[in-house]
Amino acid sequence: MLIVQKYGGSSVADAKRVKNVAERIAKTYRSGNKVIVVLSAQGDTTDELIEKAKELNATPSKREMDMLLTTGEQQSVALMAIALESLGIPAISLNAAQVKMHTSRDYGVARINKIDTDRIESELYRNNVVIVTGFQGVNRYDDLTTLGRGGSDTTAVAIAAAIHADICEIYTDVDGVYTADPRVVPNARKLEEITYSEMLELASLGAKVLHNRSVEMAKKYNVELVVRSSLNDHEGTKVKEETEVEKMLVSGVAGDDNIARVSLLKIVDKPGKAFEVFNTLAKNKINVDIIIQSVATDGKRNISFSINKDSLEDVKKIVDANIKKWGVAGVEYEENIAKVSVVGAGMVANSGVASKVFEAMYDADVNINIISTSEIKISILIEKDDMKRAMRAIHDKFNLGLV
Amino acid sequence: MLIVQKYGGSSVADAKRVKNVAERIAKTYRSGNKVIVVLSAQGDTTDELIEKAKELNATPSKREMDMLLTTGEQQSVALMAIALESLGIPAISLNAAQVKMHTSRDYGVARINKIDTDRIESELYRNNVVIVTGFQGVNRYDDLTTLGRGGSDTTAVAIAAAIHADICEIYTDVDGVYTADPRVVPNARKLEEITYSEMLELASLGAKVLHNRSVEMAKKYNVELVVRSSLNDHEGTKVKEETEVEKMLVSGVAGDDNIARVSLLKIVDKPGKAFEVFNTLAKNKINVDIIIQSVATDGKRNISFSINKDSLEDVKKIVDANIKKWGVAGVEYEENIAKVSVVGAGMVANSGVASKVFEAMYDADVNINIISTSEIKISILIEKDDMKRAMRAIHDKFNLGLV
Repeated sequence: MLIVQKYGGSSVADAKRVKNVAERIAKTYRSGNKVIVVLSAQGDTTDELIEKAKELNATPSKREMDMLLTTGEQQSVALMAIALESLGIPAISLNAAQVKMHTSRDYGVARINKIDTDRIESELYRNNVVIVTGFQGVNRYDDLTTLGRGGSDTTAVAIAAAIHADICEIYTDVDGVYTADPRVVPNARKLEEITYSEMLELASLGAKVLHNRSVEMAKKYNVELVVRSSLNDHEGTKVKEETEVEKMLVSGVAGDDNIARVSLLKIVDKPGKAFEVFNTLAKNKINVDIIIQSVATDGKRNISFSINKDSLEDVKKIVDANIKKWGVAGVEYEENIAKVSVVGAGMVANSGVASKVFEAMYDADVNINIISTSEIKISILIEKDDMKRAMRAIHDKFNLGLV
Repeated sequence: MLIVQKYGGSSVADAKRVKNVAERIAKTYRSGNKVIVVLSAQGDTTDELIEKAKELNATPSKREMDMLLTTGEQQSVALMAIALESLGIPAISLNAAQVKMHTSRDYGVARINKIDTDRIESELYRNNVVIVTGFQGVNRYDDLTTLGRGGSDTTAVAIAAAIHADICEIYTDVDGVYTADPRVVPNARKLEEITYSEMLELASLGAKVLHNRSVEMAKKYNVELVVRSSLNDHEGTKVKEETEVEKMLVSGVAGDDNIARVSLLKIVDKPGKAFEVFNTLAKNKINVDIIIQSVATDGKRNISFSINKDSLEDVKKIVDANIKKWGVAGVEYEENIAKVSVVGAGMVANSGVASKVFEAMYDADVNINIISTSEIKISILIEKDDMKRAMRAIHDKFNLGLV
């Protein structure tokens, strides 16, 4: 098999962990597989480098920050190659320039355009374990870029796609993808399999196992992912197009309490009005999640939407600047909000899911503020204090837990 | 003017020193010069990275060590660019791959083959200060290499040569090149100018201001060097082809007490015998410095040579393995040896220099063990305990000191 393995920064934080990961890679290699390894920077390296830069300049250029930060992964890959050599495993480390990981020019948030696989393939042909820097690329000026959050996962999936790997294993500090966060729902169960779409919904909803970008790319190029722990040999969770196990109605429950709700009251009900509002927000890089419009009365209607709470101050400024132009009579901001979402590819054809969610909320005495449904997801906005109770109630109602 | 400035690791060891160097670069730039800066890794970074590698593997491959170590200079150059940005100076950092610093494939001890100056020139054209990683290159496999000891000086000179810079300034923690080590000879004087050849002799004799490789390259491409301090604004010492000041007979005195003498006794006096001995030593990478053969008596002669004391154990093994083959009757090793050398382009045509050295040694009651002369250098091997006294006596005899 041709296997891509990705290990995060905490998995290679010190010499002991590097050795531990090296043993795992060696085992995979000795079993007759060809192995490509993608690594993040060790432990807190990236944060320490950012700290060093800030000592010199409060607003360093992104181009130079990328030049600085990319050294972290280069150190990781060189150290891993050195550790593998000591186990008698032939290994070679490659940085983004050597792999020719071509990205857009956007420093700090670059997107991968193309990978020339020649070098990787020739090293695999020589029976080397190939160890590649995650999170980084080169743009067409030969300058180093970084991919932003979740970058190393994306690197791993992009390489797996480009080289047609049989599987892409994402190693992390949890055993896989769960039906809910086990810290909130103690009897949450690890899923054997999940579809890309379900994973995308869960990832965007606070189940921070895999970054959305990497799942989107895996879905686009049909790269089979496995999320598993670097600390044990448990099987992990497979993320793929169609799951083979009998389809469950609901695959997981996620909660997110870092959101805020904005309500624009009595906005004039003219065609294009909603477009005007959300276009202005989009131009200001505000990510709007759920949108609800009330039915118009007296030629006016209310528009509510949820946002990440970190954007709230920005949204307030935008609303203040546009409130007259939009013809809005008043604004309400609500911060004590949480979102609970139920995800499952099986719910598309089953109208009973929504009513079961309502029933669970009624039983648990949770007041639903806003509800939004898509083909594979139902999200509700509720009081923040109700979040954990709501998650447990839904988890129980759909019998997701361990028996 | 087009100026190359090189700063060593101690000059950029922490945020304060990086800022200090940035101010100096900014001043040069604001005076209307085009500036290329070559930097080493910060402070102890390289040693720390070596330590990390050794934790994983006692004998890491040189290829991976170079991959690891080259991150040190990349961090330096990015941080310096960030510091310059905060002073409002447009700056860009470049690593060896971006500069296209082509070297031989020899990891750890690569030699520079060629520099494509396109990128540097286009950045200078955009009025950027260009900050380049010292000590590193790329070979024809796109792999990173390091240049070995004195590498950053060599990088600076190579860039200055390739881009036809007006001057290459080597910043260090001393004010320039002195007539002798001021710690040994308190009234030693800083030289205004010195020729490449004199500098080469001094550099190889323990005056560790500039590494020989960089001086050799400067001489080959006629790059004018200035050695000066990064801690003050003193003028420094110019290193060039012909000095303009009235030629001094002797320009400096250097001492080295890390040497050993080996004497092969009563070796059979046949043609090719000396060649056999020194060829064997050369094949084993032993650097032999001074060689003296005695006049043959009874068809036998003694051969003595000096070596760096660090090679002594290796030499002992080689001698043991070959003593019969060489036809040597006995061996003497002497470790309590020092070498004192007098260097000066003016001494070529002046037979009085050697006699003045003898006179100084006679006055100071120092016994000369072996003497060796070249066109611009006289070296004597003496007892180690006599070294400092001998240096002062010669320094005084030639009136090199401050009056």
